[in-house]
Amino acid sequence: MVRVAIIGASGYTGVESIEIILRHPQAEVTYLTALPEECGLVSDTFGQLTGRLDMMIEPLDMDVLASKADVALCCLPHKVSMGFVPKLLATGIKVIDFSADYRIKDVAVYEKYYQPHTDTENLTKAAYGLPELFREQIKGADLVANPGCYPTGAALALAPALKEGLIEPNGIIVSSVTGVSGGGKNPSPLFHFPYMNENIYPYGVGIHRHMPEMEQVASAVAGKPVELLFQPHVGPFDRGIVSSTYSDPIQDITIKQLNDLYAGFYKDEPFVQIVSKPPAVKNVTKTNYCHIFPAIAKGKVVVFSAIDNLIKGASGQAIQNMNILFDLPEMMGLE
Amino acid sequence: MVRVAIIGASGYTGVESIEIILRHPQAEVTYLTALPEECGLVSDTFGQLTGRLDMMIEPLDMDVLASKADVALCCLPHKVSMGFVPKLLATGIKVIDFSADYRIKDVAVYEKYYQPHTDTENLTKAAYGLPELFREQIKGADLVANPGCYPTGAALALAPALKEGLIEPNGIIVSSVTGVSGGGKNPSPLFHFPYMNENIYPYGVGIHRHMPEMEQVASAVAGKPVELLFQPHVGPFDRGIVSSTYSDPIQDITIKQLNDLYAGFYKDEPFVQIVSKPPAVKNVTKTNYCHIFPAIAKGKVVVFSAIDNLIKGASGQAIQNMNILFDLPEMMGLE
Amino acid sequence: MVRVAIIGASGYTGVESIEIILRHPQAEVTYLTALPEECGLVSDTFGQLTGRLDMMIEPLDMDVLASKADVALCCLPHKVSMGFVPKLLATGIKVIDFSADYRIKDVAVYEKYYQPHTDTENLTKAAYGLPELFREQIKGADLVANPGCYPTGAALALAPALKEGLIEPNGIIVSSVTGVSGGGKNPSPLFHFPYMNENIYPYGVGIHRHMPEMEQVASAVAGKPVELLFQPHVGPFDRGIVSSTYSDPIQDITIKQLNDLYAGFYKDEPFVQIVSKPPAVKNVTKTNYCHIFPAIAKGKVVVFSAIDNLIKGASGQAIQNMNILFDLPEMMGLE
Amino acid sequence: MVRVAIIGASGYTGVESIEIILRHPQAEVTYLTALPEECGLVSDTFGQLTGRLDMMIEPLDMDVLASKADVALCCLPHKVSMGFVPKLLATGIKVIDFSADYRIKDVAVYEKYYQPHTDTENLTKAAYGLPELFREQIKGADLVANPGCYPTGAALALAPALKEGLIEPNGIIVSSVTGVSGGGKNPSPLFHFPYMNENIYPYGVGIHRHMPEMEQVASAVAGKPVELLFQPHVGPFDRGIVSSTYSDPIQDITIKQLNDLYAGFYKDEPFVQIVSKPPAVKNVTKTNYCHIFPAIAKGKVVVFSAIDNLIKGASGQAIQNMNILFDLPEMMGLE
Repeated sequence: MVRVAIIGASGYTGVESIEIILRHPQAEVTYLTALPEECGLVSDTFGQLTGRLDMMIEPLDMDVLASKADVALCCLPHKVSMGFVPKLLATGIKVIDFSADYRIKDVAVYEKYYQPHTDTENLTKAAYGLPELFREQIKGADLVANPGCYPTGAALALAPALKEGLIEPNGIIVSSVTGVSGGGKNPSPLFHFPYMNENIYPYGVGIHRHMPEMEQVASAVAGKPVELLFQPHVGPFDRGIVSSTYSDPIQDITIKQLNDLYAGFYKDEPFVQIVSKPPAVKNVTKTNYCHIFPAIAKGKVVVFSAIDNLIKGASGQAIQNMNILFDLPEMMGLE
Repeated sequence: MVRVAIIGASGYTGVESIEIILRHPQAEVTYLTALPEECGLVSDTFGQLTGRLDMMIEPLDMDVLASKADVALCCLPHKVSMGFVPKLLATGIKVIDFSADYRIKDVAVYEKYYQPHTDTENLTKAAYGLPELFREQIKGADLVANPGCYPTGAALALAPALKEGLIEPNGIIVSSVTGVSGGGKNPSPLFHFPYMNENIYPYGVGIHRHMPEMEQVASAVAGKPVELLFQPHVGPFDRGIVSSTYSDPIQDITIKQLNDLYAGFYKDEPFVQIVSKPPAVKNVTKTNYCHIFPAIAKGKVVVFSAIDNLIKGASGQAIQNMNILFDLPEMMGLE
Repeated sequence: MVRVAIIGASGYTGVESIEIILRHPQAEVTYLTALPEECGLVSDTFGQLTGRLDMMIEPLDMDVLASKADVALCCLPHKVSMGFVPKLLATGIKVIDFSADYRIKDVAVYEKYYQPHTDTENLTKAAYGLPELFREQIKGADLVANPGCYPTGAALALAPALKEGLIEPNGIIVSSVTGVSGGGKNPSPLFHFPYMNENIYPYGVGIHRHMPEMEQVASAVAGKPVELLFQPHVGPFDRGIVSSTYSDPIQDITIKQLNDLYAGFYKDEPFVQIVSKPPAVKNVTKTNYCHIFPAIAKGKVVVFSAIDNLIKGASGQAIQNMNILFDLPEMMGLE
Repeated sequence: MVRVAIIGASGYTGVESIEIILRHPQAEVTYLTALPEECGLVSDTFGQLTGRLDMMIEPLDMDVLASKADVALCCLPHKVSMGFVPKLLATGIKVIDFSADYRIKDVAVYEKYYQPHTDTENLTKAAYGLPELFREQIKGADLVANPGCYPTGAALALAPALKEGLIEPNGIIVSSVTGVSGGGKNPSPLFHFPYMNENIYPYGVGIHRHMPEMEQVASAVAGKPVELLFQPHVGPFDRGIVSSTYSDPIQDITIKQLNDLYAGFYKDEPFVQIVSKPPAVKNVTKTNYCHIFPAIAKGKVVVFSAIDNLIKGASGQAIQNMNILFDLPEMMGLE
C-alpha cells in the first residue's frame, strides 16, 4: 500500500484526491494537513466524507510526515508551495506538487508571471507530470510538477499536430471555458452564486499564467518555439474545461489524415479518447479522461478537448503520476 | 415626478429598485447612498447599468437627502436600519424600509429574534406594506415596513383561507424554497457557486426570523392567534420563492369552494393571480406577480405560491407601496 | 464474478448501474439490452463510456440472457416491466426490478395508481429492496422490487420515529424536491433546459404514485396503518432528493432523545449517516449514502433526508441488493 | 399606437416580443397567430403572461391581419418564413422577419447553407436590420430581415476595426458561447436539462449557418471581402451570447488607439457600450444592450461582445427596427 499524505487538504484538489484514494486498491490516505485554522475532523470540512473517512486534518509536522507517508500530494497555492517542497523532499518521500512553482523551467518566465523563485534547485530536477507526453521523465523522479488544468487540456489537443510538424508554431489560439471550481474554494464576488449563475465571461486577457506553461509544453513537444494566445472564460458549471484550439496547417491536410494522426498518437493512451463529435464536458466530468475531437474548418486545424479540471486537470492526474512513481498500473483507482 | 432616494444602494434590493424606477414614468432616482467604501459610479458596482444610469453612489447626507428626495427606500440590513430611519423621517420625507426593524409590532418578539429595539416610537406608527392585505393602513403612512420575502408569499397563500376561518389556526406548515439572491450580495461559503450549484438544503430549522413575521400577519388576517411552522430551504437558482403551505380544514370543503374563495378574494388584485396548475417560479421571476394555486390533498388544504423574492418580495412591493403613498396607479412601473 | 445483465440499458438508471459495476471488483456487465431502435454501441448512447466499455446494446434474447447472466437489473418503466419479469425469472436468474410493478403489495392500491396488474403471482413473492429496513426478506429472494427514489429517502427519514411509536401515524407530511434526472431521459417541455433552469415547481398534488408506496413502507415499519401526504417538487439540478418530513409527536420528546434514537437505529448501517446540520444534497450526490437530520421545531418532529435519486434511490440500491443476494459485502462497489 | 401582429407567437422570440411590447408606450399587440395546434389562450402557452395579456393565439388569417395590424413580426423558422412573407407584405403592412430567409443577399450562398430560395424578389428589397450599422437602409423599408443572434454580437464587435481597415480581412476567428434558449422551444435530447446542465460543448464545426451571414455583414462594413471562421458553443444558461473575436492587425496599433476607435465609433449608439473589463453576459441579459471590450493580446486584436440572444439578438432588435420604421424614438420600450 502506498501511504499518501495530502498537504493542504482543505481545498478542492485535496478532497478530490481523498475521494480518488478512497477507491484506490493500493493506496491509502495516512496524513492530512492544513493551516491550523483549517484543522479538525475532515468530514466537518467536507460533509460528503461523513462516515467514509474518520480522520483529522492536522498541522503539518515533518517528522510525522516522514513516518507516515511514502508520497506527499502538495496541494498548496503557488508561491506558498515552493516554501514547503524542499522540506517535504528532505524527509525522503516523493512529492507531487499541484502548484505552478515547479512547472516552468525558465526562471525568468516564472518570475515574470509569478514572483521571485526561491527553490531553483528543485525546479531543475522536477518532472512535468503530463504522463501522455512525458512519461519517461516522470518515472524515477522525486518531484513531479503536476500540470495546470488549462495546459493539460490544451497540450493534449495540440500535441499530435505539433509533434508531427503539421501546424504553424505561432498564431495558435486556445480559447477555453472552465467551470467555477477552477477558481478554488474561497468565496469571492466573482464566484458568488447570484453573480456567476446564468453568466459567462472572459478574463485574464493576454496575461493568464497558464499561457507560458502551455507554450513551454507545446515547444517541448514541437521541438521548436511555439507561441500561442490563450484566452480563458468562466461559465456557470462546477467542473470541466472545454478548449477550442485554432491553428494554421503548414501544408494541405485532409480530415482523414488528421484523424489518423490523432488516433495513432493516442492509441495506447487509455485516458485520451478521440471522439466522433465535438466533446461535451459532461462526458468527462468525474473521470480522468480527456476527449479530443480534431477537425478542419475554413482552412484551419481546429481541435477541441474536454477534461474535468479537478481530475485530469489536477487530482486524477496526480494519482496517475503517483501510480507511475510507485510502479502501479497507471489506471489504478482511476477507472 | 416622485424623487426617490435609495439608502444602501449597493446591494441587490438597491439595484433592483433602480431598475424598476428606470422604467417608471412618474418616478426618478435622484440620490443613491451607501457606506463610504461602497461609493463611486453606480455602474462600476452594477455593470448592467452601464450607459443606463450615470450617477454616483454617495455617502448619506441628511441635508442633501431632504433637498433631493420625496421618499427614501431604505435598503439597509435589519439592526442597522433602525439607527437611520428616525433621521430619515426627520427630514420630512416618506420612508419605505426594507429591513425587519419595523415589521414586528410586538417588541418582545422582535427582541427575541433580533436584538433590543431602539426606535419603538416609529415602530408603532409604521404600516406593514403588504398592499393586498393592508392597503388602507399604507395610505397616508409616513413609514412603511416593507414585508419580508418569505412572509409575502406565505401570507398571500394563506390569507383567504384564514380570513374565511376555513383552516385551523395552528399546525400550519409553510415549506419554502428560495433562490440564492435571498441571501444577499456578500460572498460566503454557503453561497459560493461550486457549493451552491447542484445543491439544495434546508436551514434555520425552527428559528427563522420570518416565522414570527408570518404569524403576526396571519393572525391579523385571521383575527385570532395563528401558530405555524416555517421551514426554509435554499436551491440553485437566482431568484424566486415557491412556498408550499399545508393546513387542516376546520370543516369539509370542496375544491370548487376553495377555488371560488381564492378567486373571489383576489379578484381585484392585479398582482395576485390564481393559476390553474401548481405555480412555477420561472413564471413570476422579474415580475411583481404572485401566482397562487389552492388544492385539497389527503384531507389537507394545500396552497402553493410563487413570487420573485427581489420584486414582489422586496423592491417591486416597495414601489407598489410608493405608488400608494403618492397616489399613483398601483401598477405603475411594475407592469 | 457476478455476471450482470441490464434490461433497458439505454436510460439513466441503466448507465448509472453500468458505471457502478465498472468499479465493482466482483461483478461485471455481460449483457445489455434495449428496444431495437435503441441498440448499438453503448458508448454511442452514453458518450461518457467511450474507451471504458466496448459493448453493444442488443435486443433482449432470453436464451442469451440465461447463458450470460446471473442476475438481471430490469430498468424498464412500470407497466412494461411486469410483462418481462416473469420471463426473466423463468430463465432461472435473479431479478432486481427498478419499476413500481412489484413494490405495492396491495393489488387494489397498485391498480388505483397504475393499471391492472398482470403478474400478481410474482408480486407476492417479491422482496422490497430497502436493505436498511428489510434486509432479511431480501436475502434469498429471487425477485427484488427496488424501491422508488422518493420512498427511499422518506422511509429512511421516518422509520426510526415510526418504529419507536414516537409520532402520530397520520397527518404526516413529506415535502420533497428532486433533481431533474428523476424525470428520466426522454425530452419533454417540462424538462427542457430553458424552462427548467432557474425554475422550481410542485407537481402531482395529492396523486403522486410514490405516496401509497411510502404509506406501505411506513405502515410495515410502524406495525400499524400510516397515512401521509407526499408533495413532490422538481428543482433545477441534475441529481438528488431532499425530503423534509413533518409529524406530530405522540408525547413529549427532547431533541437529545430524538438524536439518540436515530443514531442508535442506524448505528450499524454504513450508508445512513446522521449528520449534525440539515443535509445538503450535494454531500450525497454520486454516492449511495443517505444523510439524515432529525429536529424538533414548534412542537413538531421534523426530519430531513438527502439521497442521490439515481444511486441510493435507484442503481446504487440495486447493487446493494445484488450484493446481498450474492453474499458479497454489502458496500462492495459502492464505497 | 403601432398595432403589432406576431406571426408564430408560440415560440421564445414570440413571447419575448410580447413582453417588450407590453412595456412599450406607443405599441400594442393586436394579433397573435400560430399553427392551429398551438392556438389557444396565450397565457396557457406562456404562464408568465397570466393576468397580463388576455388574448388568444389564432390561426393566421390575412384579412384579419390586414385589418388589425400595422406591422407583423414574423417569428417563423427559416424556410417556412419565405412561404409567408410575400403574403404578409401583400396585405400592405410592414414586415420584420426573424428568420434567415431574407438576410443573405447572395442566393447561391443562401441555397448552399439552407435550401432553394422561393422569394428572391423580396430578398432583394429587404433591409438588414442591424440599426447601428445599417440604419439608413432600414428607414422606409417594407421588409426588414432581423439579424441572427450570433451575427449581431460578432458584427458589433468587429465593425469598428473592419471599417477602419485596422485588421486583416481574413483569418478572423469568432468563438461564441450561447445560452440554451438559442436552440428554441422544442424539447430535444441535446437540450434536455439533465444533459445540458453542467455541460458545455462546441457544435456546428465549420458549417454553422451564421458564418456566411457574419461574412456578408463584415464584408459590407469593411468594403472588401472578409473571410472568417465562426465556432459556436452552447453552455448551461438560459440567455446570452459571449463572442470572443481574434484577428490580426494590419499594422501596429496601441490599446489606446483601439479604445478610442471603439469609443468613437459607438459614441452615439445608446445600445452599444464599451466596457472597461471583459463583458459578463449577466450584465446584458434582459436588455437590448451590447457590451464590447476591445483588447490587444499577444499581437492580436481581441474584441469581446455580450448580448442577450433573445433581445438584442432577436426581439429587442426587432422592436428597435420597428421604432425606426414608425419614426418612434429608437429606444422606446427598450430602456
